[in-house]
Amino acid sequence: MNERTHQLDLFQSLIAACVSLVVFVGCTTSSAQDPLPSWNDGPAKKAILEFVAAVTDNSSKDYVKPVDRIATFDNDGTLWVEYPMYTQVLFIFDRVKQLAPQHPEWKTEQPFKALLEGDMKTVGAAGEKGILEMGMATHSGMTATEFEKTVSAWLATHKQSKFNRLYTQCVYQPQLELLAYLRDNGFKTFIVSGGGIQFMRPMTQKIYGIPPEQVVGSSVVTEFQIRDGKPVLVRTPNINFVNDKAGKPVGIYEHIGQRPILAFGNSDSDMQMIQYTKAGEGRRLGLFVHHTDADREYAYDRKSHVGTLDKVLDLADANGWIIVDMKNDWKGVFPEK
Amino acid sequence: MNERTHQLDLFQSLIAACVSLVVFVGCTTSSAQDPLPSWNDGPAKKAILEFVAAVTDNSSKDYVKPVDRIATFDNDGTLWVEYPMYTQVLFIFDRVKQLAPQHPEWKTEQPFKALLEGDMKTVGAAGEKGILEMGMATHSGMTATEFEKTVSAWLATHKQSKFNRLYTQCVYQPQLELLAYLRDNGFKTFIVSGGGIQFMRPMTQKIYGIPPEQVVGSSVVTEFQIRDGKPVLVRTPNINFVNDKAGKPVGIYEHIGQRPILAFGNSDSDMQMIQYTKAGEGRRLGLFVHHTDADREYAYDRKSHVGTLDKVLDLADANGWIIVDMKNDWKGVFPEK
Repeated sequence: MNERTHQLDLFQSLIAACVSLVVFVGCTTSSAQDPLPSWNDGPAKKAILEFVAAVTDNSSKDYVKPVDRIATFDNDGTLWVEYPMYTQVLFIFDRVKQLAPQHPEWKTEQPFKALLEGDMKTVGAAGEKGILEMGMATHSGMTATEFEKTVSAWLATHKQSKFNRLYTQCVYQPQLELLAYLRDNGFKTFIVSGGGIQFMRPMTQKIYGIPPEQVVGSSVVTEFQIRDGKPVLVRTPNINFVNDKAGKPVGIYEHIGQRPILAFGNSDSDMQMIQYTKAGEGRRLGLFVHHTDADREYAYDRKSHVGTLDKVLDLADANGWIIVDMKNDWKGVFPEK
Repeated sequence: MNERTHQLDLFQSLIAACVSLVVFVGCTTSSAQDPLPSWNDGPAKKAILEFVAAVTDNSSKDYVKPVDRIATFDNDGTLWVEYPMYTQVLFIFDRVKQLAPQHPEWKTEQPFKALLEGDMKTVGAAGEKGILEMGMATHSGMTATEFEKTVSAWLATHKQSKFNRLYTQCVYQPQLELLAYLRDNGFKTFIVSGGGIQFMRPMTQKIYGIPPEQVVGSSVVTEFQIRDGKPVLVRTPNINFVNDKAGKPVGIYEHIGQRPILAFGNSDSDMQMIQYTKAGEGRRLGLFVHHTDADREYAYDRKSHVGTLDKVLDLADANGWIIVDMKNDWKGVFPEK
């Protein structure tokens, strides 16, 4: 966590310097000829265009019927910013602080105590287990409707510090174009994320054009209850499913029921999803965003505390996975506000 | 199981007599004016037409945006025949017989032994637990791809005895019209069934126009593995989720992420789904098929061994649930072959 704390501090102090560097490239640069105007010409863009052309050409040996054109995208680091910390973790931290008055026991229990005292080193030392514990405590004990309202309110008001924009505006313009381009070509686009399924759903339709039922993610066990004569769904503090790593192909099987023909991730946690996708019959495409752009976004990979991209870099060539170099392949990073 | 065995015998002996009574009413009776030609005029049809008109009229106080027009349908007994035994249970019985040579232990283990010896009384005495045990044994231990092929092959060749047609042709024509009518009016149509999610998916697109990702059902735990360098999904003999009764609203929350505005079932097992649907804000519609037609299909309700409809009949009026009387409300039951 020393690294995390250091990076959090660093990015706080860099806000002023960086804000002027943020480049906004929006739809204004699009042309009728180019469905992906925020993508620079290069091997990644070429691979995407050739793939879509092949699977939609019904005279091609690679043709795929529209009903089988399934595309899956990771969320954190693939569709929106995940650095220096996953948005949902920042939401968890905020919720612990908000709910603290109702939980006097958190004054003495770790890692709650440390978080409330701003001791991020101790929070970090508690690791994923600590974050999970705080996640369970803040994501359960309320109805589904209450949780949705809480998430929506938080997302509507909280900004990413480096870019001084709402988290929902820290989405990648090239990916918005790709999602739209795929849908224009008869694809169904899905999110397949390690993040909480119900944390993402309040915003995916609005920011990505992806409806709630096309979002796959991690979840807590939910129970149906009748309260005061009204049926409600109550979120419990028990894990139902972890949609990460080897869980991603399983989540795809459960929710989508079809193997994707295109999958897009950005970290080793997406590797199994891409392996599963590429192992299907016929032509397939697997891609990873490589965060190489410290100026316009962030640069991190093999040793990062979030979105670690390590094994994938070693195995990409041999497996025909496309590595998208953010700095070189993306003309712009974020949409206009 | 005495009742079940009796009914199984009964329906065997009635085949010859009944086959001539089967009425095929197909799309040929449809007219441009009537989107539901296989529905007789009556309170059920009226309720459906008025509901759809209200939620799609953007000058109405009941207007619902297309993205929120979610309709959920139970499968067994609501979209296709479930009597005298659920199709999936008949599939399980067949699979036990097929797989028996690879399982010599089944010669002595109950309820496998009884099934293999044709002793349906003992099979029945083992109850749901026995069927579940045989289900787990026959629905696991293979890859997802292998299971899909097995289900598809079985459905392509096995016929329902009373109607002498494939199970996939034992679907209700009025419901096919309703599904199409809802989709024509911007609804997304989902199946929410207690049946196995992967048992249904191979056929739902073809017979209902419902793609795999819009099917919600019960499931076993699945694992991602690399076998001989190839990634595969392996079905394990452990229950993952039971999408029945109070599980239905939970399954809807997990898979769809939105509360339906219309839900259609046929048994007490669908009651919680309809309660959850009707408890949402704004106008909602909840319906149940009542199997009242011994001639054209079957007549069963309060004391049936499948699709028990009991509590619902007591509570329907007070809750504004629509009971669809098959005999009176449906002009035809099955589509033309």
